[in-house]
Amino acid sequence: MRFFSDNTASACPEVLGALGVVNHGRAKSYGDDEWTRQLDEKFGEFFGTDVRAFVVVTGTAANSLSLATLTPPYGVVFAHEGAHILNDECGAPEFYSGGGRIVGVPGANGKLTVETLGRVLDELHVSVHSMQPAAISLTQATELGTSYRPEEIATLSALARRHRLHVHMDGARFANSLEFLGCSPADISWRAGVDVLSFGATKNGALAAEAVVFFNRDLVRDFELRRKRAGHLISKSRYVSAQLLAYLADDVWRRNAARANSLARQVGMAAGAALLYPVEANELFLKLGAEGKKQLREAGFEFHPWGGEASGNTRFVVSWDQPESDVAALCKALRERT
Amino acid sequence: MRFFSDNTASACPEVLGALGVVNHGRAKSYGDDEWTRQLDEKFGEFFGTDVRAFVVVTGTAANSLSLATLTPPYGVVFAHEGAHILNDECGAPEFYSGGGRIVGVPGANGKLTVETLGRVLDELHVSVHSMQPAAISLTQATELGTSYRPEEIATLSALARRHRLHVHMDGARFANSLEFLGCSPADISWRAGVDVLSFGATKNGALAAEAVVFFNRDLVRDFELRRKRAGHLISKSRYVSAQLLAYLADDVWRRNAARANSLARQVGMAAGAALLYPVEANELFLKLGAEGKKQLREAGFEFHPWGGEASGNTRFVVSWDQPESDVAALCKALRERT
Amino acid sequence: MRFFSDNTASACPEVLGALGVVNHGRAKSYGDDEWTRQLDEKFGEFFGTDVRAFVVVTGTAANSLSLATLTPPYGVVFAHEGAHILNDECGAPEFYSGGGRIVGVPGANGKLTVETLGRVLDELHVSVHSMQPAAISLTQATELGTSYRPEEIATLSALARRHRLHVHMDGARFANSLEFLGCSPADISWRAGVDVLSFGATKNGALAAEAVVFFNRDLVRDFELRRKRAGHLISKSRYVSAQLLAYLADDVWRRNAARANSLARQVGMAAGAALLYPVEANELFLKLGAEGKKQLREAGFEFHPWGGEASGNTRFVVSWDQPESDVAALCKALRERT
Amino acid sequence: MRFFSDNTASACPEVLGALGVVNHGRAKSYGDDEWTRQLDEKFGEFFGTDVRAFVVVTGTAANSLSLATLTPPYGVVFAHEGAHILNDECGAPEFYSGGGRIVGVPGANGKLTVETLGRVLDELHVSVHSMQPAAISLTQATELGTSYRPEEIATLSALARRHRLHVHMDGARFANSLEFLGCSPADISWRAGVDVLSFGATKNGALAAEAVVFFNRDLVRDFELRRKRAGHLISKSRYVSAQLLAYLADDVWRRNAARANSLARQVGMAAGAALLYPVEANELFLKLGAEGKKQLREAGFEFHPWGGEASGNTRFVVSWDQPESDVAALCKALRERT
Repeated sequence: MRFFSDNTASACPEVLGALGVVNHGRAKSYGDDEWTRQLDEKFGEFFGTDVRAFVVVTGTAANSLSLATLTPPYGVVFAHEGAHILNDECGAPEFYSGGGRIVGVPGANGKLTVETLGRVLDELHVSVHSMQPAAISLTQATELGTSYRPEEIATLSALARRHRLHVHMDGARFANSLEFLGCSPADISWRAGVDVLSFGATKNGALAAEAVVFFNRDLVRDFELRRKRAGHLISKSRYVSAQLLAYLADDVWRRNAARANSLARQVGMAAGAALLYPVEANELFLKLGAEGKKQLREAGFEFHPWGGEASGNTRFVVSWDQPESDVAALCKALRERT
Repeated sequence: MRFFSDNTASACPEVLGALGVVNHGRAKSYGDDEWTRQLDEKFGEFFGTDVRAFVVVTGTAANSLSLATLTPPYGVVFAHEGAHILNDECGAPEFYSGGGRIVGVPGANGKLTVETLGRVLDELHVSVHSMQPAAISLTQATELGTSYRPEEIATLSALARRHRLHVHMDGARFANSLEFLGCSPADISWRAGVDVLSFGATKNGALAAEAVVFFNRDLVRDFELRRKRAGHLISKSRYVSAQLLAYLADDVWRRNAARANSLARQVGMAAGAALLYPVEANELFLKLGAEGKKQLREAGFEFHPWGGEASGNTRFVVSWDQPESDVAALCKALRERT
Repeated sequence: MRFFSDNTASACPEVLGALGVVNHGRAKSYGDDEWTRQLDEKFGEFFGTDVRAFVVVTGTAANSLSLATLTPPYGVVFAHEGAHILNDECGAPEFYSGGGRIVGVPGANGKLTVETLGRVLDELHVSVHSMQPAAISLTQATELGTSYRPEEIATLSALARRHRLHVHMDGARFANSLEFLGCSPADISWRAGVDVLSFGATKNGALAAEAVVFFNRDLVRDFELRRKRAGHLISKSRYVSAQLLAYLADDVWRRNAARANSLARQVGMAAGAALLYPVEANELFLKLGAEGKKQLREAGFEFHPWGGEASGNTRFVVSWDQPESDVAALCKALRERT
Repeated sequence: MRFFSDNTASACPEVLGALGVVNHGRAKSYGDDEWTRQLDEKFGEFFGTDVRAFVVVTGTAANSLSLATLTPPYGVVFAHEGAHILNDECGAPEFYSGGGRIVGVPGANGKLTVETLGRVLDELHVSVHSMQPAAISLTQATELGTSYRPEEIATLSALARRHRLHVHMDGARFANSLEFLGCSPADISWRAGVDVLSFGATKNGALAAEAVVFFNRDLVRDFELRRKRAGHLISKSRYVSAQLLAYLADDVWRRNAARANSLARQVGMAAGAALLYPVEANELFLKLGAEGKKQLREAGFEFHPWGGEASGNTRFVVSWDQPESDVAALCKALRERT
């Protein structure tokens, strides 16, 4: 019973099926096919505004490429100290930006706050001797499975604007937050001040497909050239674009996210006092201790420690395709433990 | 009737079908799944030697990442002046190497020769003021649809070794050359002195899957870190590795290549004196002139000019899935033109 | 009365005079002159071991170029959170390394300690997803004007070795520490485990001359190419090498440092309880408060706030050429304030 | 008798003397001193227009840093195939631009022409797959000791503008061309369409001082940050700025250049038919053959072969401080040889 990560999940039938549907004839390549050409329109409908949308195959590429358009080589991106771009991408943003820097900022529940970010920005001494503030990056859902509320994003964006910083969002689990919040996609993106969004689909049912959605379209040409130059412009682009189209259509994204979120909530309730953060997406962080971890592992549950094995803390991620029996067993094991 | 490129082709049923076969359960991610773990063994069998094989989704990534392991930031890679890495990748090798340089070398039929490359290497004045020779890169099949013979590769590799250069091969159409030559994979790779091979599958039936095959395994760890850092380590790795496994199994690669090559040869024969280079893979270069191009386009054939519209030269690429009717019609049109 | 920094100082007569001495005839360029060719030997004598020594004109160049030889593009350098390489070089190490990262580590009195650095190193989770630990960088004298003792450096180096990290020293004020400690140059460099040293001369009497001294000589060729590539190989090299030769000869470095250190100690004693850190070089950090700062500024003293104007803390740097009257006046002002 | 290069020359007394003049007191650092603050004005007077002028210590730094402000990482700079930036800087422009490319263009006498450059620009197929044309770089005097006439520069600049390219000039020997041409500095810089000029002083009498002069001032802030980040912002800036001020004052630049040019012309006349290119600065290229080279070397003349020892061609550079006896002896040897 594997709760390692939602990137262990399979692809959902709607997305996998779409590959077969487009698999006919000789389609123009490098984004000039009829499916890729629909992305701007479909994402525009989804977000309720004009956008430019581009497809890449990993979240790291989506984040790094979009950040590289927002920051000069001597630029600084401010992100939560637990952010994926800071800790889990082998320095991809540094590589793509040509030597930029990510500065980690603390904040409860995995969130930047106007207080913590504001303090860091206020204390900056910017001169020719220092790297230059360029952008902030918010993660939605956060690395701790919480979700920024629309007004939290808007307030942080406004703070960023006052400091002349761009706003990027790492939305690897954007769908899970969106489903949890029940708001419109606009509410937690452009309307709240986001310039560029890494819109994840892979974790929530695609094989390998993420969109980079530009609400601020000035930097689009730079992005396109950087994407090609990085080997992230897919030649048979129809097979990645088709995944995104299927994912957006018929609320596939929502159904997958809703299922994962709902099952995660069940686990969260079963976990009781062991729960470290509110369950606002499909991830759970549980304080199990050495003994609790051992018991669950012996019972066949696979999960990652969090913050080092010694901490006794753990992360469980519920995938869109997680069997209900896995979840029921986990809930039972957690309840009996309590 | 589309002869633009083999990257307009669809995916072959064996490869597409493999995606469905692996689409069950929660598989470990980032290359730790049971399919990705087979790559070293399967490619080792294919090449008849121990190798390390890694999957990426584009040829540009395969080429740039492998070249980056072979050259320091101040290094020079020598390649044919028509090479894809020099002309068609928006400077990806420069980006990945941190500012390296590709030096184009002339040579008939798209091939480097011991004479042309030797002359360039002999004339180098290497000092602290110059960039440092680091590697050569051979393209198999070449950009002009010709194939290096095993002894040509071996002689070029020996020349490279004498100058202490690594040997890279861009094998975006490796299968087409291999089928044309009828030799073993070893004969045109490690046995002929190749250190690292970009082994293409996308153009010949996969959706998006290329292998980077290391025969010289010293630089593997550097490659793995650079791949992750570039966003080319796929999270749901099973879906790309499965493509490569299916492609290698049951001679799929050979059947697809043989079909494309054979159809291309038919076109080549029909082209008669218009044929610019020998047909040794699945590409054709035809001198059609302005009038010839116009006629064929009006007859519904899609193809690229080559060397500028003004030259009157053209490129036709026959895909593995090209309808025989397309080819018959093209042959007929070419013959009637002659 | 200017106490901003020792880089406001003039050049000492011995160093300036040396420029005239070498200013005759047409000398070979780019380091092939008779003066530059003496650097290895003279620095070897100074350090009591075989070294390779190279000259550059800024400390930022010395630090960044030497760090770039010690870390891959995906590497991490651990340094004190107040380190110049982290805060005052506009991201030079990131630029030179091709996207590496400096991780700031806390520690009292501007020093890394085995406890604080050890904790950071022990908590690392190194995988293909993380940047790779590559080196530590120690600053001697530290940014707070303190000096590492030989055994402190040796213990930190040993810790670094256990984690397979290289050891770099930023010695912009190396002479000041050396004079303060009264030990041999070897004791706080190679004998204590330092691989590469940025040996400063500019602040202590040169016009613009810093040496990069390699005790571990494996990486020298890489350094030389990176230096040229960065535009830091001076064509008329005699004029920078002559500065270093004059600086090393006849204990010029020591006399200049001794004077600055001694005057700084006088100020330190005068400061009494306002002194924030022990005076172990030529810098002083004083808690003056808003009123104290105002009084001193009105009395004609120029100095920098430290940690923001609001903190009330200040930095005074005593230069090798500081007039005694400046120092006497400052001491008097500080004593009367107390 | 050393004719290797003008970077073997000594510093002229006016420049060296200026170092002593500024060597008093504690001057503000990093360009905030009274001498550096004069650079804009003095260079503005020299060029007859408003400029921003910055000092660095090498031509490589001046060229690379200014080119980096003119080209994105995926940009192409077009330069003569013999250009220093292409052949003699170990890839510095590639490094500074983050992976840009220099494309060498042929042209007689070391000059780009509207024909050769125009052909290259016209044949470009710019798309997302190609690197993007960004700038041209002209060398004045050229690498073959010739000088662009004002109208040649203006015509090339106009061609560049039509292709939306910036114009950079590598003026390592700007003074020599200016003296030869007898025109105003404006005529061969901003008035002829140059955006940024690397204005050399080192070869013509300074110790180590080059100016980067921005006529197009939009990119100045980017330059300043890149310069600091590269370790090329000198802390004791007075000592480099003073060199430039002395060099500009009282026609020092002109006297030095005039002397070197005049002596070079004498050698050129003595060389007779061996002279390969017109002498329009202070460099001579002579076809001496193996025997001629041998004779001259045995007679005590030091010079570089040009285009490989085998070619029999040679380069002689006359420095501003070349003894007349050297020149007389060389003229005599050349005449007797003829």
